[in-house]
This record gives sequence, structure tokens and C-alpha cells, in this order.
Amino acid sequence: MQFFMLVNTQQYRTIWPTETIATEPKTISIIDQTKLPHAFEIRQIGSLAQMITAIKTMQVRGAPLIGAAAAYGIALAMLEDDSDASLHLAVNALKSSRPTAVNLQWAVSRMLACLQSRPNEARHLTAWHEAANIAEEDVAQNKAIAQHGLVLIEKLYQNRKNQNRPLNILTHCNAGWLATVDFGTALAPIYAAHNAGLDVHVWVDETRPRNQGAALTAWELGSHGVPHTVITDNAGGHLMQQGLVDMVIVGADRVTSTGDVCNKIGTYLKALAAFDNHVPFYAAVPSPTIDWTIKDGLIEIEIEQRHGDEVAYLQGLALDGSVQNVRLIPIESAVANPAFDVTPARLVTGIITEQGVFAPHALKRLEIIA
Amino acid sequence: MQFFMLVNTQQYRTIWPTETIATEPKTISIIDQTKLPHAFEIRQIGSLAQMITAIKTMQVRGAPLIGAAAAYGIALAMLEDDSDASLHLAVNALKSSRPTAVNLQWAVSRMLACLQSRPNEARHLTAWHEAANIAEEDVAQNKAIAQHGLVLIEKLYQNRKNQNRPLNILTHCNAGWLATVDFGTALAPIYAAHNAGLDVHVWVDETRPRNQGAALTAWELGSHGVPHTVITDNAGGHLMQQGLVDMVIVGADRVTSTGDVCNKIGTYLKALAAFDNHVPFYAAVPSPTIDWTIKDGLIEIEIEQRHGDEVAYLQGLALDGSVQNVRLIPIESAVANPAFDVTPARLVTGIITEQGVFAPHALKRLEIIA
Repeated sequence: MQFFMLVNTQQYRTIWPTETIATEPKTISIIDQTKLPHAFEIRQIGSLAQMITAIKTMQVRGAPLIGAAAAYGIALAMLEDDSDASLHLAVNALKSSRPTAVNLQWAVSRMLACLQSRPNEARHLTAWHEAANIAEEDVAQNKAIAQHGLVLIEKLYQNRKNQNRPLNILTHCNAGWLATVDFGTALAPIYAAHNAGLDVHVWVDETRPRNQGAALTAWELGSHGVPHTVITDNAGGHLMQQGLVDMVIVGADRVTSTGDVCNKIGTYLKALAAFDNHVPFYAAVPSPTIDWTIKDGLIEIEIEQRHGDEVAYLQGLALDGSVQNVRLIPIESAVANPAFDVTPARLVTGIITEQGVFAPHALKRLEIIA
Repeated sequence: MQFFMLVNTQQYRTIWPTETIATEPKTISIIDQTKLPHAFEIRQIGSLAQMITAIKTMQVRGAPLIGAAAAYGIALAMLEDDSDASLHLAVNALKSSRPTAVNLQWAVSRMLACLQSRPNEARHLTAWHEAANIAEEDVAQNKAIAQHGLVLIEKLYQNRKNQNRPLNILTHCNAGWLATVDFGTALAPIYAAHNAGLDVHVWVDETRPRNQGAALTAWELGSHGVPHTVITDNAGGHLMQQGLVDMVIVGADRVTSTGDVCNKIGTYLKALAAFDNHVPFYAAVPSPTIDWTIKDGLIEIEIEQRHGDEVAYLQGLALDGSVQNVRLIPIESAVANPAFDVTPARLVTGIITEQGVFAPHALKRLEIIA
């Protein structure tokens, strides 16, 4: 499968060690996702502190990508100071930078396990190597997700009632290339279907407050030539009632061992509507997104509360071509901004993983495989 | 009950005949709701064409208010030309200006019935009189809705589990003063509860694409001193899962004789979440919002498709204090903008009307009363 991230005819991933003349990189390059779709900017991340800022401000976001970013953050920390104290400081700081996505916890724990028994002077090279492994594994997992998801799409495509119209797939937030190192999770099967010549059309939820759907998913799909239509987060239920949605695919920030899906705020509402209208609802996740330690997502997952200004202000392209922040609500009004919600397993048709598609209650079988 | 629409210590309604030295008004004054919350501007509407533009561009919006606005539009048309041809032209043009809200159809039909048998030269004065009647009846109905809704709120308030926290009421879009001539529908019981000293707090859905919640409901509630918090449209389901919503009250643009509720896009998703979490879900509507001619809202109600630019662009206050439109999505992306959805009666706890509160299946009893 080709790499998808063509930007101005150049291939990109979301994160990569910056090339240097010496053999060892000194910085990590990232695409600054807070600037899209209005500007395509690459940032150099040269320290652990800069990486934590990039994660917190969502210059890098998406559960798989922040896993890889955190791993590279550890490598940058080891380059600065390869002591045990530095390692544990980096581990703790990264783990608390965003509480909900489990990949971040998973990647940091894996880096710690790999590094703590190594001699100090070997740590920085080992860290670069292990972070690159995590990134490559993400790419491989997403390729496998694309293939497993494609089988589902092909089946729905062949069985759709009206063969003269496209298969309509609704997605929420961004779980595409930009949310991963490459390929994406929820969007990977859609790209595979489009590449295979299937007539697919994507309903792109805007995804307030940060508009990752309108900004990132629409930009990705447009760059790849996949037909899509942006809608408000309010519209999906109505479209399902009208028979205009054949399938929902979302990513996830954490999936419980019982199949509860924690994803961007608003996912639960779409799952309810899908269930009410007999539309299959899938989450596409690489296995590091599954948290085998918890059973009840509603009780056990800490939901990140982000700043109200993400709701009160919105960034867009002004008439003069500048990117501006505008305020939407009266200055006196309070604002709340829970970033994620939990969709109970009873509303989920299946979990698409690199090992295959599992019914939520059968997810435990994956624990043995993965 | 006091009039609520205090703006800078002056009492306002949303629409009124402009005072003149002569006995007969020549124009209608409206609050331009496309400018709120950033600017409070009064517009003079001097012709049928101007009124239709005001309705289409949503300078006036909200089912009860556009009913009154359409009635005044007929009066303006009769002032210009009191012929049968002019009357029928006005009726048809107004009826097609916004297809979903039934109050507009109702008000225009009532004006036609009242005027067609009158001699031409008497029509303009009769029309002013009948339009004023429609406006006053709306005010009276909303006062009654406030009282009936207050009884429901008081009951939930007394029975709430944690007596130390406020009663949390979620609302979608704007069904307050600004959506009516005065008092509001969904917000009328909330104002009544606040005035009665009950500790109520309102979750205000932003309500994309036009942000009537963030812009209008937040502004209204803030002006009246009602505690409220603005949230994205995505957040309500999560808040209900967490037990943070005790009641949902929305307005409606049309209610079927069987209790299906057609309201702002996204209402259906909140109703699903309320049902899933055992949160009572009410629609507050004056009886002209009920369309006795239809039974199945999903099949029979025409859903207005508005311009995609309402989704692609958003208006807000820039840092320099100017009101700016910014673009949110890539210029190449398609956009869809269905303006309303239908909540099936099975998800509705009750319909709050000026005649009392009815279970959806019992709504037909109101047809006999009203």
C-alpha cells in the first residue's frame, strides 16, 4: 500500500527524526496540526519540554500519534540527560500531559521498561531505536486495520440497497493519517476502499470544539481525493434517520477490555443514533489503544477537562487571508469543555484491530493474540 | 409576571410596530438577531420584501416569532397594495420563505382568513389589528407555558438527589424571549423558576451551525442573571451519563398531532441521550406550533436545507473588537446543512403547552381544547 501523506507532492508522516549529517538526530520534526487546514507548518521539537508542550497544545494529537510522540519525547530527554532521575521525570511528565489516551501511557511504559536496565550512556541510542520501532509498528498496525476494515466495507458495499449511490460512511473527529504516524485508524479502511475503486462518500462531523473533522479530516480526505461532505455534529442523527448513513467508523483514545469506546466528545451521541437506526458502528484501533486493566469505561476512565477557551473561541481564515481567533459567546458566560466521552459496548458493532474485527464482548480473545 | 426583555435597562420585545405621530404605523421594528451577542441593533422593516428577507436571513427566527413577523409582513403588504392579488402574493411568498416552522403557515393562513372577506380599503387597518392580536396571544401563551413548566421544574427540584446542587436543565438552540414575541417557550419555565428563587442552572448547547445557543440563549440568560454554562453540542450526552443533567427542555418548529417534535438539528441526538439516561425530555410549544394535519414527522415534515456557508463560516468577535466571519473548512470541501430534525414521540416525556402538559400520545386532547 502506498504512503498516503502527500502534501504538495511530497510524502510526509506526522512525526519523524530530523535528518542530520551526523548519524544521530538532535530534533524531531512534526506537522503542527493547530495550523491546518489554513497553513502547513513543520516544527522542530528539540527537548522534552517542547514535546510536552506540543502534546498539550495538540500540535500533535490522536491517540496513536501521541504514543509515538511521547516515545520520541523520552529519546529527547535521554539526549539531554541519561540519568535515572531524568528518565523518571520524563516518564511522569509525559504520562500526565494528557490523561485520557492510553497509547501515551503504553508507549511511555514500554520506553521505561526498555531503558531502565540499560547503562546510562547507551540510553539515548536505545531510545531513538525503540521510539522508531513504536512508530513503525503503528504504521504496520494501521495497514492491517485498513485491510480488515476494507473487508467490512466491501460487504456493506455489495449489499447496499441502492447500487447507484455511494456507500456513505460517517466519521467523527480525526482518526486519519494525522492522528497516527501514517495511514490512520478509522480512515485507513476508507482510503483502502477508495483506492480499491469503491464508490465511498464520507460524512465528516465538524467535531467541536477544536473542529478536527472540519479542519483535519476534510483536509486529509480532500488531499487524497475521497468524496466527502462536512456536516455539523448535530446533523448525523438526522442523516441516519433518512437512510443516508450506511456505516459509522471512529477511532478511539482508549477501549476497555469489555469493549467500551472512549473517544472524542460526541461519539456517544452518534453511537446512540446509529443503534436507533440500525447503522453498524465500528471503532478502529491498534491494540495499544486497548486498556486491558479496566472493565467499565464510564466509571474508570478519567475524562480530560480542557480549557473553556477552546469552546469560546474558534480559529478560522479571515477574509484578508489571515488566521484569526474569534469569540463566539458572551464574555460573561461560563464554559465547560469535557474532551471525551464513553460509548458503552452495547452500542458498538465491532472493534477493527490489526488482528481482525472483534465484537466488543469477544475483545478479550485479542488479549491472548496481541 | 414582569416583562423580561430588559436590554440596557429598557424593556424590549423582539418585534413591534414602530411608533409614529399618526395613528397607523408605517414600519415594524425588529431586533436584528444576526448581530447578537456582539451588537444590539434595531432594524426598521418597511415592506413585505424586507420582512421576507429578515425571515430568510434569520434576523428574526424562532417559530413563534416568525409567525408574528409573517403576520406583520401581511400588514405591510396591505399598506403597499390592498388588492386580492397583493394579498395572495404576500401569503404565498411568506409561506415559502421558511418551510419547516408551522407557525408561519398558521399565522399567514389566519391573516388571509381574516382579510379576504374585508373590503380592500379596510384591509390594512384590520391587518395591523390582527397581527397585533397574534403577537399578544403569543405573549399570553408563553406566560401560561411558564406556569405549567414551573410546576414540572418544582417537582424535579424538590425530588433531586443532591439538595446541595442546582437543578441542571439542558436546552438546545434558542427558544427564549428572542424566539418569540416575549417570554420564550423552553426558557419561559426556567425564567419562572429562577424568579421563584429556585436554584436552577442551564447547560446551553452551542447549537451549530448558527450558534443560537452560544449567541442568543447565553446572552438572554446572562442578561436575566440565570446561571448557565455553554457547552458544545457534543457534550450533552456525556453530561447525562455523569448524572449532571436533570431535565431537558427544548422548543419546537413543528409538533405533529402524534407528538413527534421537529426542532433545530441535533435535538434528536439529545433526546436519544436523555432516553438512554432516564432524563425527562420536554418540548415547550404554544398550540400554533402543533400541526394537526400530520401524523408522522419523519415522513411528512419538509426539512429546510440551508446554505452550506452557515457551516463553513462562523461569525465572532475578533481581537480588535470587530465582528468577523472566518472560514473553518477547506475551500474544496462540500458542505451539507439540514436545519432541523425530528424527534420521535417515543423519546418525548411531555409537551408543555399553554393548556397544560401532555404526554405525546395524549396531545390530541389539546386539539379539542385549543
